[in-house]
Amino acid sequence: MLVNVNGQWLTRKEAKISILDRGFLFGDGVYETIRTYYKRPFALDKHLKRLEYSAEKLGIKLPDLSFITSVINEGIERLSESIVDQQEIYIRLIVTRGESEFSLRITTISPTFVAIFKPLETSNKEGVKIKISTVRKIPSESIDPKIKGLGQIDKILARLEMTKEVYEVIMLSFNGYVAEGTMSNIFMISNERLITPSLDTGILNGITRDTVIEIAKEKGIKVEERLVELKELFNAEEVFLTHTSAEIVPVKYVEEIEKDVGPVTKLLKAGFREYIERWIESY
Amino acid sequence: MLVNVNGQWLTRKEAKISILDRGFLFGDGVYETIRTYYKRPFALDKHLKRLEYSAEKLGIKLPDLSFITSVINEGIERLSESIVDQQEIYIRLIVTRGESEFSLRITTISPTFVAIFKPLETSNKEGVKIKISTVRKIPSESIDPKIKGLGQIDKILARLEMTKEVYEVIMLSFNGYVAEGTMSNIFMISNERLITPSLDTGILNGITRDTVIEIAKEKGIKVEERLVELKELFNAEEVFLTHTSAEIVPVKYVEEIEKDVGPVTKLLKAGFREYIERWIESY
Repeated sequence: MLVNVNGQWLTRKEAKISILDRGFLFGDGVYETIRTYYKRPFALDKHLKRLEYSAEKLGIKLPDLSFITSVINEGIERLSESIVDQQEIYIRLIVTRGESEFSLRITTISPTFVAIFKPLETSNKEGVKIKISTVRKIPSESIDPKIKGLGQIDKILARLEMTKEVYEVIMLSFNGYVAEGTMSNIFMISNERLITPSLDTGILNGITRDTVIEIAKEKGIKVEERLVELKELFNAEEVFLTHTSAEIVPVKYVEEIEKDVGPVTKLLKAGFREYIERWIESY
Repeated sequence: MLVNVNGQWLTRKEAKISILDRGFLFGDGVYETIRTYYKRPFALDKHLKRLEYSAEKLGIKLPDLSFITSVINEGIERLSESIVDQQEIYIRLIVTRGESEFSLRITTISPTFVAIFKPLETSNKEGVKIKISTVRKIPSESIDPKIKGLGQIDKILARLEMTKEVYEVIMLSFNGYVAEGTMSNIFMISNERLITPSLDTGILNGITRDTVIEIAKEKGIKVEERLVELKELFNAEEVFLTHTSAEIVPVKYVEEIEKDVGPVTKLLKAGFREYIERWIESY
């Protein structure tokens, strides 16, 4: 593991922040999670755009994107020296409002920038179990779901409901529609259509989610982004999750209901690999 | 300022935590804010009980209450040496789940305990301005409002709407009832009754709020804890806020509507001082 704090390269042990940093005191900061393919940061522009959006909504001044990009590239290069060729890298960017005089009152202060680099753990899961959480998504009326903020108590409460055999819990929107997992977006296949909760369900605009929708459309699969009833998830022929580090994760059990890892999921998984190959060729 | 991290006494500059602490990464921790009167921690039992509740709901193991209490007493003693006699002390307790292997996945780890001691800033505000926030409280279906978690993005979004002359913004519940401020509870006086949003509005059980209700009842004032319509706040004869460090703060303006700092507010303010005097005599 390798960490950059405000431009300084540090080891895991050295990487500390003040207990007065508002990121620690109030969760007053934003983050992004990026992974590499062939040691290149995938969809970096989209991740930086989302980071800019989150920071702007909170009035946090981001460091220059050119600085962030150069830290990312240097971090990848530095960590690559100590890992094997095939090992990909996980990157977490965090920007907080900075160190404050200890009041929720917001003053203009100097932001704290943290970038963490570590070997990406991949587990090629072939059929996981998901459960439905009793914790509802925080509605947009309280927090814009497109803000990736540090504080994630709702997701932690949801994950506390997980037993060992459960890979992910799915949260419903306040109104009871299927929303998203604590670390993933969800897709269903029914009657040859690919169905996924629309952004106005109150979910994060996942970048892997975006990529999968793009690939599905290329493959001629009908895509429906809309409000999704819970019964549709139970009735679906195929179900899978998407997230940055694990791409497409097929679901074998929705609660106790068994699903096939079917042809559409397999087609999209293969399509995702092709997409990455094309992307790296044009990098 | 003086800080205790896991039993170690540190200066402000020395007080740092790992960037891998889950309190920083995910807001995975709880807190309490305590103040002294006559250098004694006020309502310590109630604060510790609330801290226990928050921690239990998140499955965070608290250090022994006897350890926490001894740190509080020692911190007050240490800081007292460098401040004048009349100066009271502000204490913030933070307990996080601890340092993790960087995944939202919850594992049993050793919690991080932080206690911050600093001189209490008091400003005897005589008539402040409040506004109604467009940010709605996070509903209980998403996060139990009695959990005092580190992440406070909703409150930060609400405070971003504050202009300079505004002391506090009041958030409504998801259903549009008057709930609470970002750092305070709210009370109204109408037709000689003291009205305040009930806990089932989805608010924190403020300890100063509790104390004020107790005092009002002693004084023979009728108290109504219930769902409160927004129009009642605008129509109220008197309005005040309560919070740990500033006790009772009279409101002079609800948005553009002027209020009197009237007889009931004054009676309760005097009653609060008497309450403190009685408390310290029996300490």
